[in-house]
This record gives sequence, C-alpha cells and structure tokens, in this order.
Amino acid sequence: MTTETPIRLTIERLTREAFAPFGDVIQADDSVRHFTINDGNTERYHDLAHIDAGQDGRAIVSIFRGQPRILPFPVTMMERHPKASQAFFPLSDRPYLVVVADPASTPTIDDLRVFLCNGGQGVNYAKGVWHHPLLALDAVSDFLIIDRAGPGDNCDVVQMEAVSLIPALEWR
Amino acid sequence: MTTETPIRLTIERLTREAFAPFGDVIQADDSVRHFTINDGNTERYHDLAHIDAGQDGRAIVSIFRGQPRILPFPVTMMERHPKASQAFFPLSDRPYLVVVADPASTPTIDDLRVFLCNGGQGVNYAKGVWHHPLLALDAVSDFLIIDRAGPGDNCDVVQMEAVSLIPALEWR
Repeated sequence: MTTETPIRLTIERLTREAFAPFGDVIQADDSVRHFTINDGNTERYHDLAHIDAGQDGRAIVSIFRGQPRILPFPVTMMERHPKASQAFFPLSDRPYLVVVADPASTPTIDDLRVFLCNGGQGVNYAKGVWHHPLLALDAVSDFLIIDRAGPGDNCDVVQMEAVSLIPALEWR
Repeated sequence: MTTETPIRLTIERLTREAFAPFGDVIQADDSVRHFTINDGNTERYHDLAHIDAGQDGRAIVSIFRGQPRILPFPVTMMERHPKASQAFFPLSDRPYLVVVADPASTPTIDDLRVFLCNGGQGVNYAKGVWHHPLLALDAVSDFLIIDRAGPGDNCDVVQMEAVSLIPALEWR
C-alpha cells in the first residue's frame, strides 16, 4: 500500500533511555561507570557499547565518510545486520540523524524512530536492529565504525511500503 | 644508571610506514582499501586496525578524557598490554603525541620513538607494544578507545632508568 501524502516523522533527541531498545549510546557522561587512570591524567568512561561480532566474525574498525543528506528526507528503505552489532561514532563534531526500528519484525512506518544525535554521541546498533544507512547533515562527515568481518551475508534490506519524510530540523 | 642531563627525544610525524612495527595507523586516505556503499552516499575506508582482544577477552569501547600535557615532557615510564591490542582515535580534532618501543625487550631510552599524530589519525598499539599513556596537547581532549575486558592482569609497567624529554613542538 502506498500512501499519497508522505507521513511526517517525529525527531527525538538521543538519550540512553529512549535508544535502549535498539542498542547503546556511546557518550562520556557521569551516568556511566568512569574512573581515573594514568596517574590522575585521564578519566576513563568504561565499556560503553556491547560489541558483538558474532560466533564466526571478528570486530573491525573502519571510517565512513558520508555526504550530507538534504532535509526533508524520505525514508524509503531500512537495513539490518543479522550477525553482528554496528557502532558509529562521529569524528566531525556535527549533529547527525539515526532512524531505527525494532528487530522483531519487518518495519512499517509506524515502527520508525528518528533520533537527532549530537557530535559527542555515538550509537551502537544491536545485532539485528533495523536502521537507515548513515545520515550525515550539513557537510561531509567522518564516522568511526566498529562492526564485523566474517563469512556469510550480514545485510538484510527492506523497502518501505509507505512514504515517510524526516522533516527539516526546527531545533538542534 | 641515571644520566644527569636529560636526553632530548626526536619527534617524528606519524605515518603508516614508520608506525608499522608498533601497530596500525587508523586514517581515511587513498592508500587503504576503500569502496562506496549506501547507494553512493558513503565511502568506507575498510578494516584499518588489527583488533585483538586475546583468547579470553572481548573487545570493548570506552572514551578517555585526557588532560593536556605540558612540553617539554619527561618520559619516566612506559606500559604494555600483554593480552590485547589497544586503539585510540582522537575525538577533539587536536594533535597529540604517542611514544612507543619495540615489544621484544624492556625499553631503554634508545628504543623510544615519539610520533606527532594529527586530529584525523588514530593509532592501534599491537599486543605487547610498549607505549606511554595518553599524551593530549593544548586542551582537555577525548579519545575513543577499543581495547579488552577479560580475566587476568593486562598491564605491565616499567620505570625508565635514564631521563628523557619530549621537546616543545617546533612544527605541527
């Protein structure tokens, strides 16, 4: 079924609580375990994401360089990695968007959650969580990625049946 | 043996070739494998570091928040993680220093190599490589860390017998 009028999605601020069904927020703040190391020089915000490369995979580090998206932006597809988690941390200190949906079933527009992340917030999609590919804003932006190398196909893609739009940002 | 006059260390620019004996440089450039993903939106610079959490460990993600060091800086100790690699990526887009030595033996001053890294360069110390703890410069700086959680002690420390100094930066 295709609706004629695009559905306007709601943008939420990224918080650990709101994102918990989808994975981890990677952020240095006092709400996480942290302690002082290096003879007082350094504060360690410890173990911020559940990295899961699967039984037959290994964790790898890559850099993604994303072109900025133009808002309003239509969400026409979603993807998921059934074998492993995938973490993104912004390196360009710029806000970006993530779109996620519960891994339990094929997402419909009603399942989509859109989060605005600030330049000091990373996200780690738990294994199997539906998400939209990288949504950089404003300028070409780099992200450090921790995901999986290993045998087998690790990307499912679904085309969205109805048309939705991420609106222009009215706040930052 | 303690020398009376500190030995002035030489600062080198970080390159993959120079750092190869100690681990990986994590950097997006055309010299590494890269390919386009996300329907043309994103360039993926792929698998830039050998993450090694050891047989009994798991890879974890943390954020280190380091106070800036003052130059000239005396290198009085070094450490190594015998069970796992440890990767650092700068999040504050600022230069920083690393000091490394060959893992084969206990380092002396003659073994020390000092590298100036720019804000777009991460490093991954290979398992067992001697290195100095975080050396941020200029301002409080955040780094994303990928290292290991697991049983057993994973940090050896050695005090340096002679006195060495990292000089003030004459170039960036």
